[in-house]
Amino acid sequence: MRILLVGASGIVGRAVAGALAPHHELIRAGRHSGDVRVDLTDMASVERMYAEVGQLDAVVTAAGSVHFGDLVDTTPAQFMSGLQDKLMGQVNAVIAGIAHLRDGSSFTLTSGITAEEPIKLGTNATTVNAAIEGFVRSAATELPRGLRINAVSATVLTEALDAYGPYFPGFEAVPGARVGQVYRRSVEGVGTGRVFKIWQ
Amino acid sequence: MRILLVGASGIVGRAVAGALAPHHELIRAGRHSGDVRVDLTDMASVERMYAEVGQLDAVVTAAGSVHFGDLVDTTPAQFMSGLQDKLMGQVNAVIAGIAHLRDGSSFTLTSGITAEEPIKLGTNATTVNAAIEGFVRSAATELPRGLRINAVSATVLTEALDAYGPYFPGFEAVPGARVGQVYRRSVEGVGTGRVFKIWQ
Repeated sequence: MRILLVGASGIVGRAVAGALAPHHELIRAGRHSGDVRVDLTDMASVERMYAEVGQLDAVVTAAGSVHFGDLVDTTPAQFMSGLQDKLMGQVNAVIAGIAHLRDGSSFTLTSGITAEEPIKLGTNATTVNAAIEGFVRSAATELPRGLRINAVSATVLTEALDAYGPYFPGFEAVPGARVGQVYRRSVEGVGTGRVFKIWQ
Repeated sequence: MRILLVGASGIVGRAVAGALAPHHELIRAGRHSGDVRVDLTDMASVERMYAEVGQLDAVVTAAGSVHFGDLVDTTPAQFMSGLQDKLMGQVNAVIAGIAHLRDGSSFTLTSGITAEEPIKLGTNATTVNAAIEGFVRSAATELPRGLRINAVSATVLTEALDAYGPYFPGFEAVPGARVGQVYRRSVEGVGTGRVFKIWQ
């Protein structure tokens, strides 16, 4: 398959690349690195990316940040930043991508355990990740030509413990190698409208 | 109790008012009508509303619109409009309201059946409503001083069938009187972080 991976240089992105690159033609995209540069929050940039890479069999997005902070001190702009970046970025990648995917292709988006398991300072993360899973649930009913769409929801990655471990006390970490395989299952499998969870 | 109801003139708002007004001091707020005017998408307007109404024992929000349309034709601005209006409006009402609620008070937000049951043209609605439920799930863990927060998720109201019936083929409608009672249960009950569903 010819697969576009957006957010290829991130911790999740590198795990996805590790699982897909041995089996597929992988095109890496990112804001500051990769085969093609893209800012998913800018629809013109997203359109340029798709025009540049041509026809695809799958798109995987592992990009986007959310705001962490006490809810009571969160400004509307801070709350919006997570919606703009992690949610709308991936939504833009789907809407603009439909025309560039071959029949029966797939989108795989990234949500996260906080969608269902709130963590300290993480209300924006829970909101954004729940929204992404809602988007996938409904978009699956709308996509034409047999296109599929799923989300992957991982717990904290072993490789991310240095940076994010303190946010996830008592949460079992998962090695990136396992996370990458779940993305592969979404890309090469038959499911649609699914949230593949990598946590109990 | 002294209760602020935002969106009091809408179909859900009138149902909520019908259930609460006989038992409480109800302050009605709305964009174009009510005891106090507010645009929930404008934090300055939200702050003015709270300053005007004074101390409260509960806030109920039944306000906000979403975008309906084919996903493939949806622009980022259209998709954002639902996030700005129904999601961020209610988020703003919560964040700004915390300081104006007495200990042990509550917020009750409005999501909707489409959070879990997608409908035609409704991907924005599913995304926004799922986000609201995520917000409630996490905000409940953060609120100080015994404050509670819940969401109510109704199916289409009997009173709304003229306007929205075609979007909900085969969905059982629920009378506003029953919907109002569920909001009362959230306001006068003990639950927090809950989504009260009025549909099977």
